[in-house]
Amino acid sequence: MRAIGRFRIPPQTTEQVMATGRNFLFIPGPTNMPEAVRQALTVVQEDQRAPDVADFILPLFADLKQIFQMRDGQVFVFPSSGTGGWEAAVTNTLSPGDKVLGACFGVFSELWTGLCRRYGLAVDAVEVDWGEGVPVETYAERLRADRAHEIKAVLVTHNETATGVTSDVAAVRRALDAANHPALLFVDGVSSIASIDFRMAEWGVDVAVAGSQKGFMLPTGLAIVAVSNKALAAMKTAKLPRSFFSFEDMLRTNRDGHFPYTPPMTLLRGLRASVDLLLSEGLPNVFRRHHRMAEGVRRGVAAWGLRLCAGAPQWHSDTVSTILTPAGIDAGLLVKHAYRRYNLSLGVGLARLAGKAFRIGHLGELNELMVLAALGGSEMALRDLGATLTPGAGVGAAAEYFRESAAPAN
Amino acid sequence: MRAIGRFRIPPQTTEQVMATGRNFLFIPGPTNMPEAVRQALTVVQEDQRAPDVADFILPLFADLKQIFQMRDGQVFVFPSSGTGGWEAAVTNTLSPGDKVLGACFGVFSELWTGLCRRYGLAVDAVEVDWGEGVPVETYAERLRADRAHEIKAVLVTHNETATGVTSDVAAVRRALDAANHPALLFVDGVSSIASIDFRMAEWGVDVAVAGSQKGFMLPTGLAIVAVSNKALAAMKTAKLPRSFFSFEDMLRTNRDGHFPYTPPMTLLRGLRASVDLLLSEGLPNVFRRHHRMAEGVRRGVAAWGLRLCAGAPQWHSDTVSTILTPAGIDAGLLVKHAYRRYNLSLGVGLARLAGKAFRIGHLGELNELMVLAALGGSEMALRDLGATLTPGAGVGAAAEYFRESAAPAN
Amino acid sequence: MRAIGRFRIPPQTTEQVMATGRNFLFIPGPTNMPEAVRQALTVVQEDQRAPDVADFILPLFADLKQIFQMRDGQVFVFPSSGTGGWEAAVTNTLSPGDKVLGACFGVFSELWTGLCRRYGLAVDAVEVDWGEGVPVETYAERLRADRAHEIKAVLVTHNETATGVTSDVAAVRRALDAANHPALLFVDGVSSIASIDFRMAEWGVDVAVAGSQKGFMLPTGLAIVAVSNKALAAMKTAKLPRSFFSFEDMLRTNRDGHFPYTPPMTLLRGLRASVDLLLSEGLPNVFRRHHRMAEGVRRGVAAWGLRLCAGAPQWHSDTVSTILTPAGIDAGLLVKHAYRRYNLSLGVGLARLAGKAFRIGHLGELNELMVLAALGGSEMALRDLGATLTPGAGVGAAAEYFRESAAPAN
Amino acid sequence: MRAIGRFRIPPQTTEQVMATGRNFLFIPGPTNMPEAVRQALTVVQEDQRAPDVADFILPLFADLKQIFQMRDGQVFVFPSSGTGGWEAAVTNTLSPGDKVLGACFGVFSELWTGLCRRYGLAVDAVEVDWGEGVPVETYAERLRADRAHEIKAVLVTHNETATGVTSDVAAVRRALDAANHPALLFVDGVSSIASIDFRMAEWGVDVAVAGSQKGFMLPTGLAIVAVSNKALAAMKTAKLPRSFFSFEDMLRTNRDGHFPYTPPMTLLRGLRASVDLLLSEGLPNVFRRHHRMAEGVRRGVAAWGLRLCAGAPQWHSDTVSTILTPAGIDAGLLVKHAYRRYNLSLGVGLARLAGKAFRIGHLGELNELMVLAALGGSEMALRDLGATLTPGAGVGAAAEYFRESAAPAN
Repeated sequence: MRAIGRFRIPPQTTEQVMATGRNFLFIPGPTNMPEAVRQALTVVQEDQRAPDVADFILPLFADLKQIFQMRDGQVFVFPSSGTGGWEAAVTNTLSPGDKVLGACFGVFSELWTGLCRRYGLAVDAVEVDWGEGVPVETYAERLRADRAHEIKAVLVTHNETATGVTSDVAAVRRALDAANHPALLFVDGVSSIASIDFRMAEWGVDVAVAGSQKGFMLPTGLAIVAVSNKALAAMKTAKLPRSFFSFEDMLRTNRDGHFPYTPPMTLLRGLRASVDLLLSEGLPNVFRRHHRMAEGVRRGVAAWGLRLCAGAPQWHSDTVSTILTPAGIDAGLLVKHAYRRYNLSLGVGLARLAGKAFRIGHLGELNELMVLAALGGSEMALRDLGATLTPGAGVGAAAEYFRESAAPAN
Repeated sequence: MRAIGRFRIPPQTTEQVMATGRNFLFIPGPTNMPEAVRQALTVVQEDQRAPDVADFILPLFADLKQIFQMRDGQVFVFPSSGTGGWEAAVTNTLSPGDKVLGACFGVFSELWTGLCRRYGLAVDAVEVDWGEGVPVETYAERLRADRAHEIKAVLVTHNETATGVTSDVAAVRRALDAANHPALLFVDGVSSIASIDFRMAEWGVDVAVAGSQKGFMLPTGLAIVAVSNKALAAMKTAKLPRSFFSFEDMLRTNRDGHFPYTPPMTLLRGLRASVDLLLSEGLPNVFRRHHRMAEGVRRGVAAWGLRLCAGAPQWHSDTVSTILTPAGIDAGLLVKHAYRRYNLSLGVGLARLAGKAFRIGHLGELNELMVLAALGGSEMALRDLGATLTPGAGVGAAAEYFRESAAPAN
Repeated sequence: MRAIGRFRIPPQTTEQVMATGRNFLFIPGPTNMPEAVRQALTVVQEDQRAPDVADFILPLFADLKQIFQMRDGQVFVFPSSGTGGWEAAVTNTLSPGDKVLGACFGVFSELWTGLCRRYGLAVDAVEVDWGEGVPVETYAERLRADRAHEIKAVLVTHNETATGVTSDVAAVRRALDAANHPALLFVDGVSSIASIDFRMAEWGVDVAVAGSQKGFMLPTGLAIVAVSNKALAAMKTAKLPRSFFSFEDMLRTNRDGHFPYTPPMTLLRGLRASVDLLLSEGLPNVFRRHHRMAEGVRRGVAAWGLRLCAGAPQWHSDTVSTILTPAGIDAGLLVKHAYRRYNLSLGVGLARLAGKAFRIGHLGELNELMVLAALGGSEMALRDLGATLTPGAGVGAAAEYFRESAAPAN
Repeated sequence: MRAIGRFRIPPQTTEQVMATGRNFLFIPGPTNMPEAVRQALTVVQEDQRAPDVADFILPLFADLKQIFQMRDGQVFVFPSSGTGGWEAAVTNTLSPGDKVLGACFGVFSELWTGLCRRYGLAVDAVEVDWGEGVPVETYAERLRADRAHEIKAVLVTHNETATGVTSDVAAVRRALDAANHPALLFVDGVSSIASIDFRMAEWGVDVAVAGSQKGFMLPTGLAIVAVSNKALAAMKTAKLPRSFFSFEDMLRTNRDGHFPYTPPMTLLRGLRASVDLLLSEGLPNVFRRHHRMAEGVRRGVAAWGLRLCAGAPQWHSDTVSTILTPAGIDAGLLVKHAYRRYNLSLGVGLARLAGKAFRIGHLGELNELMVLAALGGSEMALRDLGATLTPGAGVGAAAEYFRESAAPAN
């Protein structure tokens, strides 16, 4: 026996990697990690108050602003998740009883308006058919009608992860401007930012919320929140209580590279690598790549004869496709089967889509062959459960699209 | 040139590890990671809704209860930091205007009472000299005097990380019982739990807050919050707003291994390894080891002729020692110097201790030789700045103590 | 500027992982690493003479014998590659001028006989058409004719990695027995052992050579050499010079867990994980899985209308398929194109197959979807270069085979 | 139960890291790894014949020449260990019966001459007292006397790892030149190169052998062999057999970034990081740092009142100190005790020094506090076994030397 202080290292029960071969992770976040990010995360712990920590933190904040395509304002990074970012947006800028305009067209847009209600805000949540996005016309009407400017904030879920629908943020900005309305514009960009074009400055967004485990290709654990100067001004009079998610505390300490509490340095090291990758590839290339991967998936789905939840092409998301299963096929069972038999992780249908749809996430670190594998596995699982598809049809359709749209060989 | 979609991996600007050789991390958190934890963190991303995820999550929750030495109640894990845990404790169990009894004897105990005020609670914060801990007698008086049971919660900072002072939680429980007072007992155990003996059940603690980056030896990013059934009952009528930190949402989803939002799976994999290590070593052994490392540091400090901020031995913390620098030596400069010249990370003196004290954290993954290195580096830095110490005196004193108190060789 | 001893960490120029998304590694070794192996390799350096190192080394040697399906004899592990194992086999058991019977039917079988000549052995190398394996009948004739037992060793390349041909080792043993011939039987199992059934004891093999980067799913750097007691006896009189590859030095030191020179502990830690994975899955399951992956590839190739280099099905390798490209398509260009455009690493045709064939390695950590991706990528590259294939045909054929041959869902 | 192909990941029995806290690795190789090297080693497997592999390999070879301080000639990297490098030096350049001049003054110099004998060379091995190095005067005499130039090669063990003795390579070159002798000059630089000044070109060295696990701060597994053009010319007529270690095969394939067999890409990725670190720090700084760490150890040893095996200061090695234990203290027991009780890995005394000496390796990734820990742990172990040392004396002496010799603070 060993002396006191020595002990057996127990087995790491790592269910997910027990299967032979790679898991194909095709949920809409967490996403696959680039090797450079994985390497960057392999770090020892470090002193968050080290004399040279600002040399690391300040350029990171500056570069994050490029990702949000913003000029003024601030980016705050909370050890949290996207949901925490929603809370930060609301509690730092609004007061109890404030009126908020939102829309419900999927689980995540519903949850955000629900959060507003928990904080005692008066939420006007427009109900929209699932498969469509933010109802710009309705928003425009409500804003025009709100002569007293009682609406203090407008919520936009840029990409509804449940339905695979992308909304038009720029159009909401135009509606606000047309109505000459001073409300703050809040955007949930958790499953869009760093994957789909998002322009903080150009679109006049006041608070934008992103999460580490989507386009930033990192483990879950960071809410990355971009805030305009207008929102920072609103903060001064906002009366909702906040502490962990306080922008003030962050502002005061961030300016010399510090944080109001222990920052998640490991993830920040990973974020540095992730931001470097994104900026090196170039945001336009990142967005084009996401569109191309998404379009490949859509070609495959069409070849299967299946339909997306997202109705018209204008709503089609470049980060997640929600696919309606054929009659008689339980989508929940399909997802379980794909995982257990083929080591393929697909997203389940959520809430009213449970059992009726499955989701293929196609964001983050992704290339053509990974998508072919996901389509191939989905085909196999669908056929196992009785769907009538031509084997290889979806994969072939995607492959042909990828070939046609490929960059010229070097 | 490479085709579109290929890009240069930029350098990882990792200031901390640029120096030759190991950084000696002796701040009171983040702490050093065991190799088994580091290996466990080297994982790919995974589907948090995978069909078998409950097989991983549920036993983890069960084992966490052992760490808190609790029987009933629940442990919740938030992607957050200890500060978020403070907020969770308060917002889930109290209502605006509720009276809270606390004490201020360091930066972290002050911050917690400040948080309570932000949430509109009526805080009775007893001022205590820095260097002492929770004033049990004063608490007892206030509780006896509170016949109407207006005090809804009593706050105890088990280990004040700023001053290196450990308080007597059991005594506070006895005071509550003696007064037959129904107030909830909240404990900040961020820098004590998993390092210093903490007994949730025996001491009748209602909410206890821990963080991943201290005794759990993980990167920052988790608030680990243990909650008694009494606190869960109080939750039903508590009116403070909460969303991200909602116990209800956790309760509802945790029971089948899920979370109300994307959980930080990577850190949870690490937590599994950490809990396995702690339970394999055995909590009594873990506590003994911490005491022994701490006592070695204290012997070294005494040999230098320096004094701790913590007054009487009853207050001496087994996880952090706050050491008063000799007259004429700026503690802030000392910490910078130790970092830059010897790659030793010490804790700075906080708030009123700034410039007057430095801190040696001695918790987490630690052994005798690591402590000797920290003492040796501190000696060198102190002498560089003009302190009159015999070279090797502190190291020698600690070494002799370690030798005397070592387990018999096997 | 930082003090002396501090320096910039330069960028890691990691060409291979620069592309967006995963590289699909389908060469016949190195193979893909399981996550458990990758975790196991993430270790600090350690003392190879530590008092407890034997507790790690001796069980590893014992378990390696299970992988070789041997009872008596020894397994030696050299920091080297498979080529070094060939040299070890020959130099430890033979003397200058000894006669060796071999066969040439691909690059690797040729190289081994060439090595024998460099060491002054009299090699009788039977020339065989590429696409076939060891000529058992010819071997039988030579052995029968060798009444004087001048042939001291018979070489069998179990799996010729260049042509994708597996030979019948058991039949060679039968030929030796039928001729009552005492020659040693040497097997190159670099691309078969731990992937294709190999039975050291049952087949009376005297030296078998494996490498870490194939079925053991590790980085390159180990030659793993199994040796029978008969070969160890031959060693006593063998006069070829040897030092680094000396079995005697290994025997003398291995018995108490040591090595004649510094052992590659990191790879040995990985080997421990690899052997654990193989034995946990069970060798018969490992072999079945390899057969199934290989058969999927062959179905795909057939659906493309292409032919394997390996002629009759008896020669078909379960670890690598060498595929003849259609007329007019340069296989070398194909491999380059697949790598550059689709991040798919295929094997080139070697020597006389250069330009005329490409290879898909299907061994090690592999599952259905990985194979579909490789087939999908190969299809795309073939079509890009002008091949007339139905998009998705190969993938569909493989997928259908995988579906039919899948284990029942649980 | 999971389907076929899924299996439990077994525990990683990692004895060395089972102890609480860091192991302090102070053997003379393997050495501690820098974090940047550890990150670089965290790579996926890759295709060693990828179209862009030369872009990685060729600059690496070029930069290695800087480490050896050579201009012409070649550096070869074998998947092997230093011992393999010895074999490569001899078998590529000499013929059976050739006369070799060497010297024996420790285990490793003895082993190298033994290897020469195994290969049928006529070795003239001068016996030297352990504690001294290459007998330059005797070498000079033999060379002068060898008018017929029968001596084909002269062996120099630059740093004898068993005794902690560094020899004067430049003086041997001067002796060769003085005698106008054409013999090749071979240097075992395994424990010197990249740590102690070594000048291939200036000293006219013909073959120099290094290993990955010493100054290169990598896992064991590479022999790095630098070869002069003169040695490459000698290769053409050298008749000793060679295959795995053939320079010809390497020359032919290396020139376009390939290898004669599968190269150890993972270690080569690590080597890239290691070479970058060394060149960024600057070789003169690297050598100075090693001298300073070594001198700190020597000051500690002197303060203990103990003696080095290395006699006069001219022999003192800057990479390893072999320390004679006081009468009555078994050095083997001391090393075991230090490992088991304090997690300190020291080197044992080898061969005739067994039981009488222990070794502190001080090379590779090392700084002041690591050395203090090693000295502190050695003190504790020595005192546990009955040595009469003042606690802290050795540590204090080293610390004072480090303080005095430190670079000015920035």
